[in-house]
Amino acid sequence: MLAFSDGLFAIAMTLLIVSVTVPHIADDSSIHDLADALNDLSPAFVSFFISFAVIGRYWLAHHQFISLLDAMDQAFIGLNLLYLAFIAFLPFPTALLGEYFSNPLSIVIYAVAVGIVSGMEVVLFRHAYRKDLLRRKPTPEVYRFGVIASLSPLFFFAISIPVAFVSTTLAVAIWFLTAPFGVLLERRAPEGVESLFG
Amino acid sequence: MLAFSDGLFAIAMTLLIVSVTVPHIADDSSIHDLADALNDLSPAFVSFFISFAVIGRYWLAHHQFISLLDAMDQAFIGLNLLYLAFIAFLPFPTALLGEYFSNPLSIVIYAVAVGIVSGMEVVLFRHAYRKDLLRRKPTPEVYRFGVIASLSPLFFFAISIPVAFVSTTLAVAIWFLTAPFGVLLERRAPEGVESLFG
Amino acid sequence: MLAFSDGLFAIAMTLLIVSVTVPHIADDSSIHDLADALNDLSPAFVSFFISFAVIGRYWLAHHQFISLLDAMDQAFIGLNLLYLAFIAFLPFPTALLGEYFSNPLSIVIYAVAVGIVSGMEVVLFRHAYRKDLLRRKPTPEVYRFGVIASLSPLFFFAISIPVAFVSTTLAVAIWFLTAPFGVLLERRAPEGVESLFG
Amino acid sequence: MLAFSDGLFAIAMTLLIVSVTVPHIADDSSIHDLADALNDLSPAFVSFFISFAVIGRYWLAHHQFISLLDAMDQAFIGLNLLYLAFIAFLPFPTALLGEYFSNPLSIVIYAVAVGIVSGMEVVLFRHAYRKDLLRRKPTPEVYRFGVIASLSPLFFFAISIPVAFVSTTLAVAIWFLTAPFGVLLERRAPEGVESLFG
Repeated sequence: MLAFSDGLFAIAMTLLIVSVTVPHIADDSSIHDLADALNDLSPAFVSFFISFAVIGRYWLAHHQFISLLDAMDQAFIGLNLLYLAFIAFLPFPTALLGEYFSNPLSIVIYAVAVGIVSGMEVVLFRHAYRKDLLRRKPTPEVYRFGVIASLSPLFFFAISIPVAFVSTTLAVAIWFLTAPFGVLLERRAPEGVESLFG
Repeated sequence: MLAFSDGLFAIAMTLLIVSVTVPHIADDSSIHDLADALNDLSPAFVSFFISFAVIGRYWLAHHQFISLLDAMDQAFIGLNLLYLAFIAFLPFPTALLGEYFSNPLSIVIYAVAVGIVSGMEVVLFRHAYRKDLLRRKPTPEVYRFGVIASLSPLFFFAISIPVAFVSTTLAVAIWFLTAPFGVLLERRAPEGVESLFG
Repeated sequence: MLAFSDGLFAIAMTLLIVSVTVPHIADDSSIHDLADALNDLSPAFVSFFISFAVIGRYWLAHHQFISLLDAMDQAFIGLNLLYLAFIAFLPFPTALLGEYFSNPLSIVIYAVAVGIVSGMEVVLFRHAYRKDLLRRKPTPEVYRFGVIASLSPLFFFAISIPVAFVSTTLAVAIWFLTAPFGVLLERRAPEGVESLFG
Repeated sequence: MLAFSDGLFAIAMTLLIVSVTVPHIADDSSIHDLADALNDLSPAFVSFFISFAVIGRYWLAHHQFISLLDAMDQAFIGLNLLYLAFIAFLPFPTALLGEYFSNPLSIVIYAVAVGIVSGMEVVLFRHAYRKDLLRRKPTPEVYRFGVIASLSPLFFFAISIPVAFVSTTLAVAIWFLTAPFGVLLERRAPEGVESLFG
């Protein structure tokens, strides 16, 4: 399961660039025209790097989490496939964002898609905790911390949705706050997280 | 062989989204136009999630089955490559279904393609059983149960074909019955299946 | 190296379907129009299955061969990357054949591309034999047999080139002769091949 | 991490061919027209093989380097994902180069993209050296040699940038000098490199 999930993540991350197509310009050798055409693609490049970072972060969390499992029941396997379906889906909202960076709707769709992945992460963690699938059962404090850490991106993506209708650039800027917040959160981690996630 | 098959499944499942292309609208920043264009894509999204579930289910069955093998003969390797060819082909009927959801022919082609995969699953299982390639030879009851379990989706996909000419939505709805039927079937599994497939 | 090569083969085989795009028809719900459009795609389907079989066969040979290696020198790694470059290239001649099945040039290009892969296979085997990279050094008879087995597809692909200018269908039919010839050849394998390749 | 990185490299290398689309010609069966259309694609073929070699070389270096690591800290994992983001990005400048081979700007963008990857390689190596993540700490001489070896392609890609504005073909020819230079460099490797990288 780990090898399969890792492969799927690697493919989804590499496919992100496929939707960025080479622009067509009339005069092949014009530096100016090509520079202009590539400049128009800059939202697509920004979307590529944002999504690579987003999926990369999910991969890290998922990889560490799956490595901690002792066993999987049928329900967990099903939930994990549902989680992976949303990961495999992410290249679409990424391409949409790259094409319609200034359209609030593409921000909303991206935020919702990422939110669902974060939500599914919690569902997986909760199931593994309740059904005792983890090698070492985390303490309730560690469990609560894990849930909060998984849900924290959801908070930033949720507030970006109304902001998108004012300014899409500001909405995307809010997404970048998840990284420093994650670092802050880690400093406040209860004892026992290290031995579980370290 | 297991790593190669797993990789091929993961790629086929991730490629499903590639055929869903971002729509082109005249007014880039119009929420209404983008919402309309995305609404037109909803059959493509439905097809993506259906196919992800279908190929995911085949992956699980195939992964468990291959893990049970003790050895592979040349014929098995050839048959397995043929099976994988049909798996790698599935993104095409998926894209066809996403584009022509209301056309009975795309339903028929999808149902036939999935039916061939289920049929090949039985061919592989039958070959492994007859040539004693499995680590633990299943009892005839367990073998018969495995064949029935493999063929059960074929039943639902077969009856969806005539239904598609009346209503394509109803035909697709019938496909969803394979999941609860699979659960029902598992409850009636003979002894020894657990130790073989559990 | 084995995992990397296997992954590259699996991706190349799965990408073959990406170039087969869903046809566009005016009347979405017309069964007749969609059937016609799909019928026009039949050369693309034939090309997909031929190439899947061709690359699958190369994968098997390559996987078994790499598994027999004891060590790799720098030159072998470089040659293997060149071999893999031609494998990764094959989706292009496949797509070309699917689009221009009746054009002799696409037959020639496909035959040359496959011929280069077979040639590279011999180069790799020869290098491993000369530099003693194989776990068990094959006897000169076994070595000669391995070279002939690798070159045999080249023979059929070479004669298909002039034939293509008479009939492209006949040229492709000749390719199918490699399979029964391979089986015939295996029956005449000298002693020691089994222990090397079995 | 190694399996994930290897998978990502294999996918990026195989995706390079996806952007080379089959040309459309009016007369399907005309050998002459197809030959002409394919001739126009020759820059795309050259770009494919150059990029396959470039990414293949990075993969070798990265694979060997990661294999030497004893541990990874959070910062290293983050830096490695950034490195992989630029690897996953390379199919875009490759496609750009294939389409606009005679445009100096596409040469510049390709050279800069490859330069960033080489730069990131040094950043990763430096971090691993400073934080003692390598299984066997290299001597300062070996460390300095590794940095120079990583930066050497940067030198050739940098001088190709001004040259591109005179002749793009000459600029690309300069890139090919990295290979013989790499061989030369290896001959001057200090003692201890063998045991580290051999």
